[in-house]
Amino acid sequence: MRDDAQIGVVGATGAVGRVTLELLRERGHESIRVFASSRSAGMRLGDLTVEEATPEALGAAELDICLFSVGASASRELVPPAARAGALCVDKSSAFRLQDGVPLVVPEVNGERARENSGIVANPNCCSIPLAMVLAPLRDAVGLRRVRVATYQSAAGAGSQAMQRLLEEPVEKHDLRMDWDFDGVELEEESKIRAETQKILELPELPVSATCVRVPVLVGHAEALWVETEEPLGPDQAQMLLGEAPGLRLEQFPSPLAATGLDEVLVGRIREDHAAENGLALFLACDNLRKGAALNAIQIVELLLRSRAAV
Amino acid sequence: MRDDAQIGVVGATGAVGRVTLELLRERGHESIRVFASSRSAGMRLGDLTVEEATPEALGAAELDICLFSVGASASRELVPPAARAGALCVDKSSAFRLQDGVPLVVPEVNGERARENSGIVANPNCCSIPLAMVLAPLRDAVGLRRVRVATYQSAAGAGSQAMQRLLEEPVEKHDLRMDWDFDGVELEEESKIRAETQKILELPELPVSATCVRVPVLVGHAEALWVETEEPLGPDQAQMLLGEAPGLRLEQFPSPLAATGLDEVLVGRIREDHAAENGLALFLACDNLRKGAALNAIQIVELLLRSRAAV
Repeated sequence: MRDDAQIGVVGATGAVGRVTLELLRERGHESIRVFASSRSAGMRLGDLTVEEATPEALGAAELDICLFSVGASASRELVPPAARAGALCVDKSSAFRLQDGVPLVVPEVNGERARENSGIVANPNCCSIPLAMVLAPLRDAVGLRRVRVATYQSAAGAGSQAMQRLLEEPVEKHDLRMDWDFDGVELEEESKIRAETQKILELPELPVSATCVRVPVLVGHAEALWVETEEPLGPDQAQMLLGEAPGLRLEQFPSPLAATGLDEVLVGRIREDHAAENGLALFLACDNLRKGAALNAIQIVELLLRSRAAV
Repeated sequence: MRDDAQIGVVGATGAVGRVTLELLRERGHESIRVFASSRSAGMRLGDLTVEEATPEALGAAELDICLFSVGASASRELVPPAARAGALCVDKSSAFRLQDGVPLVVPEVNGERARENSGIVANPNCCSIPLAMVLAPLRDAVGLRRVRVATYQSAAGAGSQAMQRLLEEPVEKHDLRMDWDFDGVELEEESKIRAETQKILELPELPVSATCVRVPVLVGHAEALWVETEEPLGPDQAQMLLGEAPGLRLEQFPSPLAATGLDEVLVGRIREDHAAENGLALFLACDNLRKGAALNAIQIVELLLRSRAAV
């Protein structure tokens, strides 16, 4: 990334925002300004002072890049003025993900789409990112027919307050939860996973059936997958393909704790699905705050800056 | 149950053994003797003194009924002498489940098979019991083609030491685990679920693909299911069928904590699986110490005593 790029981090005091800052620093970026709601304005984050995130402030901030980790309604209000003021905006909310003209990008899968932006690039849902990374090499090799996925999502996916609640909750009260909006049939999270996977993989008709569950784990999401492919693919071949795919690491038993702090998505338990003609069963885990959110967004930015530098 | 039946509880100091005792007392059974390994012999359980479980002791104990909640190798050693001495043995381990001539029974599903015993009736795995209860009404109505299941299994399924470890473990260390024997392809738990479901449902060829995961929840197992049926069945019809089925209770979001202490299996999230022609997605939760283990075994005993009384 250009050393002189002015980077704004909006939602800097949240769980994803803090990891974003940590990763930017790790990667040597120093010109950072941090924004959050009026509640946190004035707060210190290391040597930075939190500025209030308003449409006016972001419109006037002269940022080159702006990373948003706020809710969808805040993104709808804050992203457009920042983009109009010339900042390349990478938004981690669901606000723009399915909008025409907004690329929805996982660099390892469809990085080339990022350049087709008009100032906004969307970062997919924390479950859609690792799912697309595991599905893409299978799609390329043998085509995809159907996908079923059961998720094991950590408290971190619900934000830092949810993490705090889990830390304070007696173990006897630990439970599975389905704490997403519900339309009477599907959880919003489940429809997001379907629609986003279809968009990222450019398979608008791909059947994806998801069941989303929050588990009492602090950080790290996992997913049990069943994938039916167009052509047959043995588990050994699948394992070889996935072992060579960018951003993936083979692991016998991928787990959230093992994935925490890693950049890679762990994938394993690759075996035949006896319940299908061309079927595979797999299991994945990833750090939902890093590759599931902050890291993916920073990788999008770095990709775009590299491609600008190359022009 | 006959008031005068002499009941032995073997493995009485374990997680399932303790619930067995509690349930027997709740149901008014007073003539109980408790057995466990030499380590626990002499220990007091309320007003009962733990006797050492040896083949000789059980062979000489003159029990009418003997409920075993010990590991498979201990069951292999202890169950046959007790059965030879005339006790009706209900074994909760995997030792005899798939053996010809040993009925594998979920009373609501195949209770009539229990009478075909030669002294031993096997209690299925804690995940197979609720799974069979949800699948049986669907099998009867429209036939089953394929089943996929991702489990969310609690610490209680691994015994009281595992529960203690979870209680003492810092929340930051909570993780998903796959702590079962592994043959390089499947976990033993996954093959058990397939083979037992096939036997209980009397569908020896039914494709069942399971992914088993231990979650940091103290008590209560949950399962995300995808079921393909032979004939179409709408989610509303499926919900009606399951709502009327014995031992099931409809719940919008079944969870382990909500299921804990209940006799019923909770089932919900009943919806179309868009990734299949005749497909349903569902979610279930049950108290793995009660219906998943101790309660199911006691129900088997009560069923047999009722049928003897009726003869």
